[in-house]
Amino acid sequence: MGAVNIKQLAKQLGLSISTVSRALNDTYDISPKTKQKVLEMAERLNYQPNPHASSLRRHKSKTIAVVVPEIANNFFALAINGIQSAAREKGFHVLIYVTNENDKIEDESLNHLRNGRVDGLLISVSNKTIVDDTLYKIQQEGIPVVFFDRVRDDFESAKVTTDDFDSGFKATEHLVKQGCKKIAYLQISKKLSIGMNRMKGYQAALEKYNLPADNGLIIDCVDNKEENYIKIKALLNSKGRPDGIFASVEHLAITSYIVCKDLNLNIPKDVKILSFSNLETASLLNPSLTTITQPAFEIGKQAATILLKALTKKSFTLADTKVVLPSDLIIRDSTARR
Amino acid sequence: MGAVNIKQLAKQLGLSISTVSRALNDTYDISPKTKQKVLEMAERLNYQPNPHASSLRRHKSKTIAVVVPEIANNFFALAINGIQSAAREKGFHVLIYVTNENDKIEDESLNHLRNGRVDGLLISVSNKTIVDDTLYKIQQEGIPVVFFDRVRDDFESAKVTTDDFDSGFKATEHLVKQGCKKIAYLQISKKLSIGMNRMKGYQAALEKYNLPADNGLIIDCVDNKEENYIKIKALLNSKGRPDGIFASVEHLAITSYIVCKDLNLNIPKDVKILSFSNLETASLLNPSLTTITQPAFEIGKQAATILLKALTKKSFTLADTKVVLPSDLIIRDSTARR
Repeated sequence: MGAVNIKQLAKQLGLSISTVSRALNDTYDISPKTKQKVLEMAERLNYQPNPHASSLRRHKSKTIAVVVPEIANNFFALAINGIQSAAREKGFHVLIYVTNENDKIEDESLNHLRNGRVDGLLISVSNKTIVDDTLYKIQQEGIPVVFFDRVRDDFESAKVTTDDFDSGFKATEHLVKQGCKKIAYLQISKKLSIGMNRMKGYQAALEKYNLPADNGLIIDCVDNKEENYIKIKALLNSKGRPDGIFASVEHLAITSYIVCKDLNLNIPKDVKILSFSNLETASLLNPSLTTITQPAFEIGKQAATILLKALTKKSFTLADTKVVLPSDLIIRDSTARR
Repeated sequence: MGAVNIKQLAKQLGLSISTVSRALNDTYDISPKTKQKVLEMAERLNYQPNPHASSLRRHKSKTIAVVVPEIANNFFALAINGIQSAAREKGFHVLIYVTNENDKIEDESLNHLRNGRVDGLLISVSNKTIVDDTLYKIQQEGIPVVFFDRVRDDFESAKVTTDDFDSGFKATEHLVKQGCKKIAYLQISKKLSIGMNRMKGYQAALEKYNLPADNGLIIDCVDNKEENYIKIKALLNSKGRPDGIFASVEHLAITSYIVCKDLNLNIPKDVKILSFSNLETASLLNPSLTTITQPAFEIGKQAATILLKALTKKSFTLADTKVVLPSDLIIRDSTARR
């Protein structure tokens, strides 16, 4: 018996061509049982793939999309540089979509990149991401999805993050050791697991050092600088003013510095400040800012490498991949004992 | 006589369908004479356009591309925000390409966005842009091109810039008035007209105040931070050390601050520093940085508005549009008299 084509193979199996194709290409959305069934039948019928068609189908556009919540943020700028360096090595183009922390723009961008525009997707979700089904649709259409930094816990796929809990713990512990007794946590959206993990690390450190957990010291910040300024000013103007601030993202530390300047509060004497940040000017600020610095370039590079593997290797299962990279605590003057 | 279609009209004129179509759509690449000829014949033969086809042809993808040299730079981050705000208003998607100041990546990106992927292009060229013909091809294919900030003087199209000469003059004049006698200029690529215009403003101010023009004080910087660090360190370590530095871009000011720190030079006592910059932390640096601040958001917004007009209005001639927005001198401590 001569070689059969994919249409004949699908007919024999009673499956759609698309399912058979995905099973043969070992994509993540086909069950191991179905894969097994398809592969056995393919062998039995002497199915021979058309290597050219397969390559075309697998990466038609040689393009990957990157969806990020903002770009006026050094973390994302550096992560994108890392993504580009990995993509370039494999000859892939990179298209960037910026959602401005807006779930509607995020959804529009996700819909835009469907229909053959890109072969794969790297995403750091906005802090307003609602559980919609566009990402599922993308995955079902055979576009592999890799999350980096801001992941969705409810969505099964490859994820590259940093050790947010440990970093939150380490940051808070450092503030305690520098003499802080009352540490505030500036939180971005509660919807984001990275924010929650950083906060859990903060809470665990408070518990370890027998400091009371005061919910009034956890400030829910937003995307609006003016609103955050008002919230942080109210915090630092209050009677029970904190003596330490742990900011979960860079722009909250910048706003805290501005508030301290306006209130004539001395950093670190009156209040010590520590922040997650990839700010290039951290060491040049007045005073220099103690940071938890994420390996942003590396996060982007590894996320892209995983995605490109999924696009070019047959035997790679995307959903199994979880990478957690360590962040660094870089001690500077904003947390000095004075 | 009934209505003719575009094919019959083109045949009658002895022109290609594409030329006739572009003439009817009043695109910039067709001469007024040809347009006149086509319009007259269209009227004579009672040509009726198919409004649906015309709309499809004119903005098929409802997508515009933005090509920028870097994103770890607050100017471009803010400009992109401005572009997105204008595009969103008109229901257009924005795709961002980052070239990392690499002419090869720039050319690849330009080729990538051809073939119906986008309807229009906003570009700020890399400092290594060579005079190639990909941009011409894009324009010839009917994709309107609008430059912002980093324009190409040799290429005729709409351009949105700031008053680089005046700003360079104003910056240098400020340093002179603060007591500087020996002002260095940190230059990015000589290939960029914005860098050249800023330098010409610097030179004009030196001339006005009878300060000698010393070519040894014009430092050609590159894209590499380590190399720039070495160049700026050599400058500040030299016998005839400058007492003022005017940086043409943000990252050169940051490197200058780091060099001063390492050499134990006091800013502004030993050397005053002023820079083109949209750095969010300019006022928080030690000392706070005097800047020429460009209206980055507005530049992006206006460039996008012009592009979207070209995509949606028939009677708009793109090449005629030149917009120059003023920048602000924001005086802070890095240029104080001490």
